Amino acid sequence: MSTVPDLPSSVIAGYTPQEWGKIFLRGIGQVFFQENALTGLLFLIGIAAHSLLMGLGAVIGTVLGTITAKLLKYDEGEIRAGIYGFNGTLVGIAVLFFLKPGFTTIPGVLEIILLLVGCAASSVVTWAMRKYLPFPSYTFPFVATTWVLFVLASQHVMNLPWAELPPATDPLNVTTGIEGVAEGVGEVMFQASVITGIFFVAGLAVNNWRHAVLGFVGSVLGTIVGIYHQDPSGPITIGIYGYNAVLAAIALYLWRKSLVIPILGAFLSTPITELFPKIKDFIPWLDPLALTAPFVFACWIVIAIGALEKYFCTETA
Amino acid sequence: MSTVPDLPSSVIAGYTPQEWGKIFLRGIGQVFFQENALTGLLFLIGIAAHSLLMGLGAVIGTVLGTITAKLLKYDEGEIRAGIYGFNGTLVGIAVLFFLKPGFTTIPGVLEIILLLVGCAASSVVTWAMRKYLPFPSYTFPFVATTWVLFVLASQHVMNLPWAELPPATDPLNVTTGIEGVAEGVGEVMFQASVITGIFFVAGLAVNNWRHAVLGFVGSVLGTIVGIYHQDPSGPITIGIYGYNAVLAAIALYLWRKSLVIPILGAFLSTPITELFPKIKDFIPWLDPLALTAPFVFACWIVIAIGALEKYFCTETA
Amino acid sequence: MSTVPDLPSSVIAGYTPQEWGKIFLRGIGQVFFQENALTGLLFLIGIAAHSLLMGLGAVIGTVLGTITAKLLKYDEGEIRAGIYGFNGTLVGIAVLFFLKPGFTTIPGVLEIILLLVGCAASSVVTWAMRKYLPFPSYTFPFVATTWVLFVLASQHVMNLPWAELPPATDPLNVTTGIEGVAEGVGEVMFQASVITGIFFVAGLAVNNWRHAVLGFVGSVLGTIVGIYHQDPSGPITIGIYGYNAVLAAIALYLWRKSLVIPILGAFLSTPITELFPKIKDFIPWLDPLALTAPFVFACWIVIAIGALEKYFCTETA
Repeated sequence: MSTVPDLPSSVIAGYTPQEWGKIFLRGIGQVFFQENALTGLLFLIGIAAHSLLMGLGAVIGTVLGTITAKLLKYDEGEIRAGIYGFNGTLVGIAVLFFLKPGFTTIPGVLEIILLLVGCAASSVVTWAMRKYLPFPSYTFPFVATTWVLFVLASQHVMNLPWAELPPATDPLNVTTGIEGVAEGVGEVMFQASVITGIFFVAGLAVNNWRHAVLGFVGSVLGTIVGIYHQDPSGPITIGIYGYNAVLAAIALYLWRKSLVIPILGAFLSTPITELFPKIKDFIPWLDPLALTAPFVFACWIVIAIGALEKYFCTETA
Repeated sequence: MSTVPDLPSSVIAGYTPQEWGKIFLRGIGQVFFQENALTGLLFLIGIAAHSLLMGLGAVIGTVLGTITAKLLKYDEGEIRAGIYGFNGTLVGIAVLFFLKPGFTTIPGVLEIILLLVGCAASSVVTWAMRKYLPFPSYTFPFVATTWVLFVLASQHVMNLPWAELPPATDPLNVTTGIEGVAEGVGEVMFQASVITGIFFVAGLAVNNWRHAVLGFVGSVLGTIVGIYHQDPSGPITIGIYGYNAVLAAIALYLWRKSLVIPILGAFLSTPITELFPKIKDFIPWLDPLALTAPFVFACWIVIAIGALEKYFCTETA
Repeated sequence: MSTVPDLPSSVIAGYTPQEWGKIFLRGIGQVFFQENALTGLLFLIGIAAHSLLMGLGAVIGTVLGTITAKLLKYDEGEIRAGIYGFNGTLVGIAVLFFLKPGFTTIPGVLEIILLLVGCAASSVVTWAMRKYLPFPSYTFPFVATTWVLFVLASQHVMNLPWAELPPATDPLNVTTGIEGVAEGVGEVMFQASVITGIFFVAGLAVNNWRHAVLGFVGSVLGTIVGIYHQDPSGPITIGIYGYNAVLAAIALYLWRKSLVIPILGAFLSTPITELFPKIKDFIPWLDPLALTAPFVFACWIVIAIGALEKYFCTETA
């Protein structure tokens, strides 16, 4: 008996290539909680329309995440639903967005390794959080994995090269405000692109029109709160105050069929988004990227209140 | 057979002069959704106590709006309820408040024509909105009509003379704050007058004490929000942050018998009021007067959420 | 028959010294609505750990308040529950916190007299408010009594010496933020002390873990609102935005078993806390110390809405 596992055949066993493709696409669709390969395809087109490179990152992420889950024999039904693809998708995009991986320099190759390891590791984190957290983990496996990757890439550890993100400096007007709403949907996967936003809404709509409406309304609400609070114009115009509200609205609708709760959740996510850049004022050595953490925290708060409510309502004193 | 319609007799047919008077007064009462001629009379006295001219505008408005409806053979029950009087009432007052109509100059006469045409036209707009909008039109026929009149009167079109409104410059103190609450009720019909506010609350109370309470509480809440947000003192002291909250509280109470929903609606109307002066920062060529649009939009948002809620709550997925 | 009442024996009649001790401690516990002598003992230790003097003030307050109630033959059950101790407790602490009573100067002795009279008088005010107010009086007897004492001590009346309170100047960081939350619990009895806060939470927990959770969550929420509104850092770090939210959360939970309503009440109390220092901008001769008034007002508003709701919901029009 060989100690080398019979890798390829065990991985592919049972699925046709077509089914593999669908699973990978469902993984991309699950970024917005949609178990639908067509949705995932539209999302992928939306990303690639803005950045072919990040479209590639999405594919690498969903493939590596899913394959890892298969190798580790995670639940078959969850794998097929794309559950082990979406955090990898986001890790893949995020690394290509914030870092500068490449084949021509050692640091670039190190970043490629970080990307590949991170996409695979996100699957393990997803599995662990699904098993041990008493509430939905949402995209937090992506957030946690990416934070670790970025600490490793920081000047304090590996000192790898970071992408120079062009500052968002557009003034706020009706055009850039509307663009901000559309880009807020796209920013769920780091694409400040109206086209991406439109593809994402379309991808939602082919699976569930209510989710499309809620995602769009979420982006509108988050953007309005940003405008109302006189937050910096540039970030508003690229959807920074919208994308967490998009996800919060859809996720809380899946938690409780309602319109009011998703709206409140979208509103709640925006102050949390606004607080992230201020963390470093409190903890100077800590300046975490918000990623989708504001969405996750907003949902956790709402779900926690909902779950604890019964312990407080049923006291017989 | 003459082609000239037999106008006077067809108009007056069926109503005694006394009944006509009651209908006209109900039209004024309907500005606050009160189908009550005594209420309308108290409102009219309240306006006239502050400005005889604008009291005249209210009368012209309700008369022209109602007569127009009668001529166009709109629903008899609605006409008698004052439904075709209140938007005309507001148009009549608004034109006299913002413009400078008169008999001695051509532009002044043109403004008189605008006033008369606007009051009559508001009836048609009311009819159309009631027929085609799937939700209450509230005072939006007045808002839409007046916006059109003011575009016509603007320097870009007819370049007619505008009234010089004295800037509100009172500092905020306990006296001016309380005055602001009272004037917030009066500002529903453009009267920054404590006396007018008292007459309006009295007019509400003779028809429905709950509406009087809600209107007053609405003005309190709107004014508190303005103070809390450190909005400009002058507008606070003349009730600018109160009047939309007054209407929103009463209107949403008529939609759903509740105390919490009107309070939330009053709170919602105030940020919308605050956003209106900022529209021109987004669309430089657009600087609409808020009129009662913040109230209408706040109610529409609440009603839309209420109406859509069922489509989102009953999903069987 | 003597006209001099048989004072001592009538006061002590019926209670063992041990029972008296429990009643006095329950009076301290009732500051947080806990009818529990052990809770009161933990509260007292918590105060004394930060300030022996104010611990003494708490004891004097609960003893004088309770004895007064006994002398005036107030309801026996209420006396035993500590109802006539908690306002005196707060008066005793507040006078020692804000003034400088002492035995060596006439003004100091006058302040001792104010303290003693105030603690006793708070019992009468408590009785009157419980009898005549249609809603819970909470700690308002303390607030009203202390406001009167401080007017008497002010330069306009007796011109007595006031303590020089060290300004809170800590910058806001993660340490001082967490301290602010803990001190927010302690500030319910004027102790900006983490140790006091911990003893108070422990005291709550031995009687009712839900109250402990709610009190702590209240302080978190109040402090977050203060941070989010960019209120002055110093007061945030000593719990000024937390203590009213602590009490509001617990009190509203006692009113309606719920988690959402206490959270909303805690949120409501913080803007009221923020408004208190601005009162003098409106009424120059009035600069009231907030004490626990923001908590009381927040609860009264919520209870009033709850009570009036039915009058507005059941209209059959």
